[in-house]
Amino acid sequence: MSELELIGQKAVAAKYDMQQLSTQDKDRALLAVADHLVKDTEQIIKSNEQDMERGKQKGMHPGMLDRLKLTPERIASMADGLRQITQLPDPVGKVLEEFERPNGLKIKKISVPLGVIGIIYESRPNVTADAFGLCFKAGNAVILKGGSDAISSNTAITCSIRKALKEAGITENAIQLIESTDREVTAQFMRMKQYVDVMIPRGGAGLIKAVVEGASIPVIETGTGNCHIYVDKDADLNKAIPIIINAKTQRIGVCNACESLVLHKDIEQAFLPALAKALKEKQVEIRADKEAGEILEDGYIPATEEDFATEYLDYIISIKTVSDVSEAIAHINRYNTGHSDAILTENPKTAQQFLNQVDSACVYVNASTRFTDGFEFGFGAEIGISTQKLHARGPMGLKELNSYKYQIVGNGQIRS
Amino acid sequence: MSELELIGQKAVAAKYDMQQLSTQDKDRALLAVADHLVKDTEQIIKSNEQDMERGKQKGMHPGMLDRLKLTPERIASMADGLRQITQLPDPVGKVLEEFERPNGLKIKKISVPLGVIGIIYESRPNVTADAFGLCFKAGNAVILKGGSDAISSNTAITCSIRKALKEAGITENAIQLIESTDREVTAQFMRMKQYVDVMIPRGGAGLIKAVVEGASIPVIETGTGNCHIYVDKDADLNKAIPIIINAKTQRIGVCNACESLVLHKDIEQAFLPALAKALKEKQVEIRADKEAGEILEDGYIPATEEDFATEYLDYIISIKTVSDVSEAIAHINRYNTGHSDAILTENPKTAQQFLNQVDSACVYVNASTRFTDGFEFGFGAEIGISTQKLHARGPMGLKELNSYKYQIVGNGQIRS
Repeated sequence: MSELELIGQKAVAAKYDMQQLSTQDKDRALLAVADHLVKDTEQIIKSNEQDMERGKQKGMHPGMLDRLKLTPERIASMADGLRQITQLPDPVGKVLEEFERPNGLKIKKISVPLGVIGIIYESRPNVTADAFGLCFKAGNAVILKGGSDAISSNTAITCSIRKALKEAGITENAIQLIESTDREVTAQFMRMKQYVDVMIPRGGAGLIKAVVEGASIPVIETGTGNCHIYVDKDADLNKAIPIIINAKTQRIGVCNACESLVLHKDIEQAFLPALAKALKEKQVEIRADKEAGEILEDGYIPATEEDFATEYLDYIISIKTVSDVSEAIAHINRYNTGHSDAILTENPKTAQQFLNQVDSACVYVNASTRFTDGFEFGFGAEIGISTQKLHARGPMGLKELNSYKYQIVGNGQIRS
Repeated sequence: MSELELIGQKAVAAKYDMQQLSTQDKDRALLAVADHLVKDTEQIIKSNEQDMERGKQKGMHPGMLDRLKLTPERIASMADGLRQITQLPDPVGKVLEEFERPNGLKIKKISVPLGVIGIIYESRPNVTADAFGLCFKAGNAVILKGGSDAISSNTAITCSIRKALKEAGITENAIQLIESTDREVTAQFMRMKQYVDVMIPRGGAGLIKAVVEGASIPVIETGTGNCHIYVDKDADLNKAIPIIINAKTQRIGVCNACESLVLHKDIEQAFLPALAKALKEKQVEIRADKEAGEILEDGYIPATEEDFATEYLDYIISIKTVSDVSEAIAHINRYNTGHSDAILTENPKTAQQFLNQVDSACVYVNASTRFTDGFEFGFGAEIGISTQKLHARGPMGLKELNSYKYQIVGNGQIRS
């Protein structure tokens, strides 16, 4: 049996053990894990320094190095994240529906954990603790496969969590880390259907694509956001600039940042010069179609088809001009990634059409797309933003880390 | 552009057109389609005869030929199925949750169609109309890929439905059939992520596996059922035989039929001879482990590991002996397919342990597994039985053919 299969088997065993845990058991364990992580700070940072050293030698980008770096503050913040999860309601065991059939069968639909969740992620080692915490509270065993850049940090964090679980009398296989950095192992992991119930990739578009295409386990696709803001002819232009600047520049590298503007032709003349000035102040480069470009005073970079399809995650924005809301909706549905799109309008009828017809997880009227987030939605936590339509769409909290089962009680019924 | 891509594009266009349809529009169209199918009976049967002729020439099994065959009665029954769907509540546009955030953002979670559903199925041509009806009422455009055995029948049925839709003023691309029987086309179809939102395979285990492994589109895995009945030491043995005979033999080739018995050792001596007699009367072959086998008077066929893992869909049943409910649960969780499993016991504590710990879509106490069915659950219809944990588990009705979206209304909110 391969190392990987052994991990799979242990996870399945842990999944059944975890069915027995009460909410109190789980919360107590999470608090113990939080304390243990803080206690192991020195150890974890030592391991992180090995990753940092390798990263520097490899000439890793400073932004990436910063994502990789752990400090006592960051470890304390990881621990606090786990403590916060104990404050959230336990999603498991809720009676979602209950009904009786004419033949006397009593049917209950009850929330249950997904089971074993596989998570494949990239360089940020804090995901190790965050993902464990959410999956654990929702009753799931988790198998993690982090990026090779963070392998020492991830190993140290996992080791600390497992020790704390063991001390708390809970199966340490509630969390397992695949330590191999071999790509072949990752490919096998994605196809371990007999052990893993759901796969959640967390990372850039390349990673997500690789998992979606390579996995035979059901995947929840998360996090690619080519988000649009459409400024309608009936928009309140005073609201428009702050919303656009917020959505584009408040945090540049996130999936809910705005990547593309769609402007109604009737407001372009009045609006675009002021908007261009505000974007310029934030060093945002504009790539515009011809109609918008000709209004811009300083010349413009023409937007290509590829621009409209690009999630820049950078100080760049594309602009498309349209004649009406229907054209705006068609453009957005063509190029978006099903994440978040907004309309700015004071016309309720236009707003409703946009809400109904834009095919995204989150559709906004007169607000920044940056609100697509588990915390901002009040879920108290977030494992990711689903951009697919199966199971969960938009921000995924604890509830979305559960499935359900039917429990049916009879007294001898047979089917006729 | 390939034929297949053209189909994808048309389906996406139809998906948006279908957003505009009211419940009344959809029901009116379904009634028109039902009438049209009946009107086209002669045409459809002529096409079906071509399939039957090819099937006979190929030496198709009589059971398969029967599945393939259409008669005026069967076409009338397809039409009635569509009429019944008009009686079911429209799942689209329901407000599932509604809340306001402290910053004033108003968030509504609303049910929406999945979008474009791809269905790959085998020889029964009635699936063409059934699957269309359910997907259509739930607001989805559907692309069908039926088996090559039924291609003439499927083409005739699709053609009739499309004509009826057109006459009703509704986009005929709400249903499209991939007419190519080339396997390469099927492989491409399963990877058309840009056009198709969800893939639902309907058929045997081989088909399901091929789609699960080959698709990059999210798949809902349906229909493989290695269902168990566990007879506990506290079972009412008078209930046990009728339930087992019903679950095993009432319909032999269906996914909710019982394939394996798990017997508590304490009741075997008293129960097994009578059960064996009842099974023998129904020509059911028993494959037993040593403990059970030695009780059987007429000798026995030993059950192998493979027997326990097999969905026979035949007059065969395996028997495993256990010492307690925990061993029964462990055995079932090891070999089941997450479909339906039952315990027979009068002990409520044992029953509850079984309900909680067996990891299946439907877990029963004192009833036949044959009740796992959309109609029996009162859903009024069924597109399949999901055996996976994402999105839907167990019988899938109209509601399960919907996703949701968040509609968020603000008045200028930006994220700080």
